Amino acid sequence: MKNTDVVIDCLQYNNWDRALFQATQDSGVHSVHVTVSYWENMQETLLNISRWHRQFENHSDLIMQVRTAADVIEAKASNRLGIVFGFQNCSPLNDDLGMVRILHELGVRFMQLSYNNQSSLATGCYEKNDPGITRFGEQVIREMNRVGMVIDMSHSAEQSTLEAIALSSRPIAITHANPVFFHPALRNKSTAVLQALASSGGMLGLSLYPFHLKNGSDCSLEQYCEMVADTVEVMGIDQVGIGSDLCQNWGYETLEWMRSGRWTFDADHGEGSVDNLNWPEQPSWFRNSQDMKNIAQGLKQQGFSIEDIAKVMGNNWLAFFLNSFESG
Amino acid sequence: MKNTDVVIDCLQYNNWDRALFQATQDSGVHSVHVTVSYWENMQETLLNISRWHRQFENHSDLIMQVRTAADVIEAKASNRLGIVFGFQNCSPLNDDLGMVRILHELGVRFMQLSYNNQSSLATGCYEKNDPGITRFGEQVIREMNRVGMVIDMSHSAEQSTLEAIALSSRPIAITHANPVFFHPALRNKSTAVLQALASSGGMLGLSLYPFHLKNGSDCSLEQYCEMVADTVEVMGIDQVGIGSDLCQNWGYETLEWMRSGRWTFDADHGEGSVDNLNWPEQPSWFRNSQDMKNIAQGLKQQGFSIEDIAKVMGNNWLAFFLNSFESG
Repeated sequence: MKNTDVVIDCLQYNNWDRALFQATQDSGVHSVHVTVSYWENMQETLLNISRWHRQFENHSDLIMQVRTAADVIEAKASNRLGIVFGFQNCSPLNDDLGMVRILHELGVRFMQLSYNNQSSLATGCYEKNDPGITRFGEQVIREMNRVGMVIDMSHSAEQSTLEAIALSSRPIAITHANPVFFHPALRNKSTAVLQALASSGGMLGLSLYPFHLKNGSDCSLEQYCEMVADTVEVMGIDQVGIGSDLCQNWGYETLEWMRSGRWTFDADHGEGSVDNLNWPEQPSWFRNSQDMKNIAQGLKQQGFSIEDIAKVMGNNWLAFFLNSFESG
Repeated sequence: MKNTDVVIDCLQYNNWDRALFQATQDSGVHSVHVTVSYWENMQETLLNISRWHRQFENHSDLIMQVRTAADVIEAKASNRLGIVFGFQNCSPLNDDLGMVRILHELGVRFMQLSYNNQSSLATGCYEKNDPGITRFGEQVIREMNRVGMVIDMSHSAEQSTLEAIALSSRPIAITHANPVFFHPALRNKSTAVLQALASSGGMLGLSLYPFHLKNGSDCSLEQYCEMVADTVEVMGIDQVGIGSDLCQNWGYETLEWMRSGRWTFDADHGEGSVDNLNWPEQPSWFRNSQDMKNIAQGLKQQGFSIEDIAKVMGNNWLAFFLNSFESG
């Protein structure tokens, strides 16, 4: 690994504590994109951010907030884990465009325009119909472009995603999903989306969440790394990274919150089912951040060059952050 | 007018003060559906409701809150104007289904599922595409049916409106709009919608807002009353009422708020245009609640029976309220 190389996981949703900060920092991961809001309203989101402020203050030897690409470098240089804030939904906006800049000032660098369901901006991947980006959505995309907040379409539906790519003046991201050609989940992305994303300079973070994997929890490292190679074939080596969607230290109630928020009184099983409610078991070769090394190893066996492995493991995300996180 | 007859205007959005309460009560209108939220979040909506509480307390001799059909009768019997709370949008829900019952307990009896734009529930009439009712929208419709809050699709788009009618277990309302066959505005409703609405027991409140009228501000009373007759032809005499969309005592800034909320930094001209920004001029024969009498007179000249005039002027809405405002 070169001195300038960084390892970035562009989506983890964890119940963080000092032990997990330490373990992640020890693993060689330099920065992580974390989720600070799904269904939370603005007040609750500010509470989540305030809790992160306590973490930064209490564990300043181990972690630091990342607001720019330079902060990723600084985190690595100071042996700390960099933390990038992101939203998996747009609930905190609550029909108010002015909240985009406020959230950017607080460090939010990614926002999904919709999470599984239709939002006021875009359609989620579980809706039956997808009308594309809404009138408000166009305004929000323009404002996110202006202030430097990345449009993330990980949980959005096809037409909305294609329109977001077309409408955005800056490259967008799908921080955590896999190609449909690898595994045909509703959450995974068509080749048309991958091509449009890549040709506009956007990034795909490949997921390790079992529901996004061929053979689920039994997916092999070799199969996964073949998928990385196939994705690079479609998108090019510069547009692919990792967004593991690793969820650690949560009970079932958090999975229920992610799936059902407050939009239904019934149970919504999301990617699971009545017979398979709980968190899926991670593949044996990817149980935590330490196992990022297995992916690097698997890519080597797949024939990737050292330089290309470094791109996929984090350098591509760093280059993307450099062009995305500041006002344009 | 029979003792049991009531006059109801099922949509006015006014800057109310004692003089306007008095004038409206004097006009012979017994109850009015008023708007307490467009783009307001929950906290702002509670503030609006709290301001109404001050009005009820300060003007208890003149007005009272209507929560049930019986309250309409009581308001008339006590020579007071009845006030029914409604929303023109769903911003206060902010992805939280539990807010429906809370708002019903506070007296909210109508909620539009969308206002011009796409919401998380349904599509507005100014969007380019209309995917119909969303996953969250289905949940909200079921909960509104359960607690007794009327689904209002006045500003919603065609497919969403048809699906709301089909999904709702109780009749729905379009409180303020006219038929497209009368005037082809985006806000007006197709014959297909009117037929589906009527055959499910739903109500249409006919609008007096100039942008919804043939010839705009120059629409004649005779043309308007012909439209009422034509609408009754399509929907039947029991499904038609008045929802004037009368907006009184506001400056231009309120029109800007209604049109642009906080979802755009640009000016959105809504039904107006760059050359025609401001509030449209009301037709000479409908400038305020006193002019409801002109409509009754016009309907008489159109050949309506006294009984049918009373139905259109308020009795139909009262019958609808009776079946709509309490838990079902």
